[in-house]
Amino acid sequence: MTEQHVVTLPRATAKRIPLYYRYLCMYRAEGVTRIKSHELSKSIHIPAATIRRDFSCFGELGKSGYGYDVSHLIDTFARMLRVDELHKIALLGVGNLGRALIQNNFRRNDNLRITCGFDNQCPEIGTIINGVPIYHMDQLAEKIREQGITTAISTVPSVHAQEAVAQLTEAGVRSILNFAPARLKVPEGVHVKYIDLTSEIQTLMYFADAENTQNNMEEAIATFAEPE
Amino acid sequence: MTEQHVVTLPRATAKRIPLYYRYLCMYRAEGVTRIKSHELSKSIHIPAATIRRDFSCFGELGKSGYGYDVSHLIDTFARMLRVDELHKIALLGVGNLGRALIQNNFRRNDNLRITCGFDNQCPEIGTIINGVPIYHMDQLAEKIREQGITTAISTVPSVHAQEAVAQLTEAGVRSILNFAPARLKVPEGVHVKYIDLTSEIQTLMYFADAENTQNNMEEAIATFAEPE
Repeated sequence: MTEQHVVTLPRATAKRIPLYYRYLCMYRAEGVTRIKSHELSKSIHIPAATIRRDFSCFGELGKSGYGYDVSHLIDTFARMLRVDELHKIALLGVGNLGRALIQNNFRRNDNLRITCGFDNQCPEIGTIINGVPIYHMDQLAEKIREQGITTAISTVPSVHAQEAVAQLTEAGVRSILNFAPARLKVPEGVHVKYIDLTSEIQTLMYFADAENTQNNMEEAIATFAEPE
Repeated sequence: MTEQHVVTLPRATAKRIPLYYRYLCMYRAEGVTRIKSHELSKSIHIPAATIRRDFSCFGELGKSGYGYDVSHLIDTFARMLRVDELHKIALLGVGNLGRALIQNNFRRNDNLRITCGFDNQCPEIGTIINGVPIYHMDQLAEKIREQGITTAISTVPSVHAQEAVAQLTEAGVRSILNFAPARLKVPEGVHVKYIDLTSEIQTLMYFADAENTQNNMEEAIATFAEPE
């Protein structure tokens, strides 16, 4: 039953589960045992109707007007996200960003851990940074298979990313968080999420600009229409 | 006319413009002068129909079967993204990640530049990293107003993020890229984009798991149904 729910969950819902899980854990830590969708909505900035629809995918988790059982939700989401298992992550590209990710190493999440780093030229090859051994790319397939790793983060620049990712997928990696914007070709069944800071900044600035233009236009129109 | 288009562009379309812009510049650099939606679709991994719909927001940019004028598209998007102007960005939180962002400093984009960093305790306060002066948080309002900055990146941990962001918005910042997952309260007209690496990794792993479960189930069913 649980398995089937896991498989048929809508993509947009699945994307929100980590956030729900995080906030519900915060509520439980504060002693909250039941929560209504509109209460959760206020803190998490997701419409209450969306929350109710998302939660309904998991069957009867709450009663109308009575709220959801926080612990029950947490248990359900924890199972989905497999938070009781340690997930090993490989890091590709040990430059400035790669080093920062290794230094931080998901320290606020007990079950996510970068366990090995790879680069083809950084001076740290053969050393250990914050407990994480750094290997040459030549050892990538061997180390990833050895540790049974299926998740990787790549900070390799666009020009080398496709090659690096091909090595990853060949070694069995199926989930890749990629900090280079260029779109990658990956085999079916491999998921890539692009973290593209430049595009994010440009989009943010565009929305701020557009709103500003709109406001200026409305102001101009209002001024124009005002009677003398 | 352009102004109006800028204002009324659908949010989802606006989010794709930076990516279109980047790819079209790559095509132009390779000498391509016209491009069809299905060609662009293949490299950018966005459905051709979506591309056509997006481009149609800008009026007559192409003829059916003939393709779009690459330079015309680039000019249109460049104006929208204001790529000819230097956008100064403030960075909050000069820890591992903040330092990495300053070191990289959008070096592949001439018009985006982190011009100042702020922290309330890092040892680099009063120094310059990769050309970027680092100030104490006490100087934030003064420096941001002085430089007319309206865009910021925050790597401040969740527990301090709300306070830091309040200072930013008071000083005139309207676009914030936030690396802490906790949702922030901001005044109307201020845009926040959350970069939540933990949630991204968890979601990626969930999809890979779900597919795997699905495949295992299908395999199990197939095996079960197979005649002896």
